[in-house]
Parts: sequence; structure tokens; C-alpha cells
Amino acid sequence: MNNNHMVITIAREYGSGGRIIGQKLAEDLGYSFYDKELIEMAADRMGFSKEYVKENEEKKKFSLFSNFYGVSGELPVTDQIFIAQSNVIKDIAANEDCIIVGRCADYVLSDCPTCFKIFIHAPIEERTKRAVDEYNEEVPNITSYVQKVDKQRASYYNYMTQNKWGNAGIYDLCINSALGIDLTIDIIKAAAAEFYKKKG
Amino acid sequence: MNNNHMVITIAREYGSGGRIIGQKLAEDLGYSFYDKELIEMAADRMGFSKEYVKENEEKKKFSLFSNFYGVSGELPVTDQIFIAQSNVIKDIAANEDCIIVGRCADYVLSDCPTCFKIFIHAPIEERTKRAVDEYNEEVPNITSYVQKVDKQRASYYNYMTQNKWGNAGIYDLCINSALGIDLTIDIIKAAAAEFYKKKG
Repeated sequence: MNNNHMVITIAREYGSGGRIIGQKLAEDLGYSFYDKELIEMAADRMGFSKEYVKENEEKKKFSLFSNFYGVSGELPVTDQIFIAQSNVIKDIAANEDCIIVGRCADYVLSDCPTCFKIFIHAPIEERTKRAVDEYNEEVPNITSYVQKVDKQRASYYNYMTQNKWGNAGIYDLCINSALGIDLTIDIIKAAAAEFYKKKG
Repeated sequence: MNNNHMVITIAREYGSGGRIIGQKLAEDLGYSFYDKELIEMAADRMGFSKEYVKENEEKKKFSLFSNFYGVSGELPVTDQIFIAQSNVIKDIAANEDCIIVGRCADYVLSDCPTCFKIFIHAPIEERTKRAVDEYNEEVPNITSYVQKVDKQRASYYNYMTQNKWGNAGIYDLCINSALGIDLTIDIIKAAAAEFYKKKG
């Protein structure tokens, strides 16, 4: 993949502040920002509703049956959505400096030499606090809810990529956002600047 | 564990430059530096030779039999060394600002509130190059040798701690040192400074 555009991918534990970190980074750097927007863009390409794609993408629960090819010989819906989202991501990365949150973007862009890959995590206490205070989640057991969302993200990523979500070696930089949102942003900016300097 | 001292632990893939990064950090920050020195300090406490401890610590190959308690009821040697090294690490951390490389120090100091935990990794190509060019390793298949050393480190860490070596979530900061040794050091300094500012 030839690319002159700067692309930062952000994988993130639920409640780690990955979305807000990505948004602020995009504002500071003047990059485009993509997170949930990718759902709508993939839905448009497929002729599906946004709600249908949302229901079947990252939150997908895998079962033996759901991943069989249908009698029509078509790919399972999860795989169709993954391919559509991947194509959207590749098109975006080829055309503009951008920040992409989630959607296995680090894997999708693995042959893009200007892709800088980040993983953001935080202790469970920080994440449950953010889920309640900032995301306004109202569920009976917030800790197990947060853990369940992460488990779904990991299952989806690991199934689609054969990599291991959250394993440091597949990212350029992993940060505990409990260090502070502003510091996390500053660290990413410093690291990304050097990365792109090296890439010429 | 009460502690006013600043302690940076560095876990590292073999060939990622973790030792040199730790040494330069220690020089820049005016901290003490501990890596292989811990072997000698643990050996001294145990009345073993440095060579014997070196042979039986991080490089330990686990077998069903080697981890049985002996007929004397003594702990296996690997466990004895782990405990002696852990005590040395706790004593050091309680008494001076320091950087400690390897030896499960992040786990050993998990209840130390001023411990900042780092993991350094790099793509296999970078690491084999460093192993040959800088560590002067001369083995027939350098790639499989580098992978074997990491496998031993992971086995040792996972066995001793029940955590998963290289999983981003157990560290404050994970860095791909292929970004550049100097940038890696700058990022760690910036992040550690903010961490210690927060800790007051």
C-alpha cells in the first residue's frame, strides 16, 4: 500500500477514554476523525441500515452456526461488514491524514507504512468510573459490563485478524490513560511526530 | 508498600534495546541502574555463585520434575532465586530512585505506588539485527534464537506472576523501540515525569 498520508489508529479498552483522546488529537493535528462514522459509511456501501450494521459489527457474539456460509454461498454478515468497513478504512487512509478508532484498523492497514498504531487501556476502576460519569451507562453491575464489552472487542479482533488484541507487540505505543488524558495526548503527539519524521 | 522513591521497571523483548534505554535513562535522570547486577546481589544473599544463579534464573526451562519440592521439603532452586531477587528488588526500591530491568520487577513492586512500569518491544527484524550488531551473538539461526530467549522470558514471568508478559494492560507504557532509541527515552521521561507529578 503506497501512502503519503498520516494515519493514526487507536484501539482502546472500553472506558479508557480512547474516543475523546482520538478526537482531541484530531483537533490538535488537523486530521479527520473516524469512529462510529465508519458504521454509517459501511452501511451505505452495503445498502444495509446503520442500525443493522451496528448490531452486527464489533459487538458480534460468535457462534458456531453464525459463521457458517449460508445456503446461498454468501459470506456471513459479520464478515461482509468487516470487508465493507475495511474497504472504507483503506479508502480514507489513502486520501487524508486521519485518526481511526477501533474496527481492527491497525490490522486492516498493516501494509500501510505511514500507519502509527496505538492501544489505550486503563485500570478497571478508572474505566468503570468513566463509563458511569462520562458515558452515562446505567447497568446493574458496571464492572462486569465493562469487562464484557472488552471481551467482545477482543473476540471480534482476534477472530478477524488472528492477532491478539491488547498484546503490546502489535502496536507502536500502548498507554495507560490513567496517567492523564492530556499527557496521553502529548505522548502520542511526540511519538507520532518522530515516527513521521523517520518516514520522511 | 510505602515509598517516596521513583522506581521505573523495564520489561523488554530480547534485542529491543531495553538495557541501553534503561542505562541512558538512569544517566539522564541520575537514578541507580540495576539489570544483571541483581544476579550477583541475589547470589550473595543466598551463598550461591553468580554463575549458578545466572544459570537458574530467567533462562530457566521449566519441567514437571524441576518444580517439585525436593525430598528435603525445600523450595525448587528457581523459586528460591526468585524470592531472593524479589527481596533485593524491594530493598533497592525502598532506598533509592532507580531503574530496574527484567526480573519480574513490575510484579514484585506491584504494591509500590511510585513504580512506573514499562515494556519495550520491537519487530523481530530490528531485534535480530541488534543481537548480531550490538550484542555480537553468533548462532546459526539468529531469528529462532531471539524468539527462544523471549519464550523463556515469557514462560518465567507467566509462571512466577500469573500475569501475561507483554500484555499491554499490566504496564503503564509499552513502546516499539524501532521508533528510535532516543525518542523512546524521551517518551519515557515525559511520561514518568507526569506520573511522578501526579503522585506528588
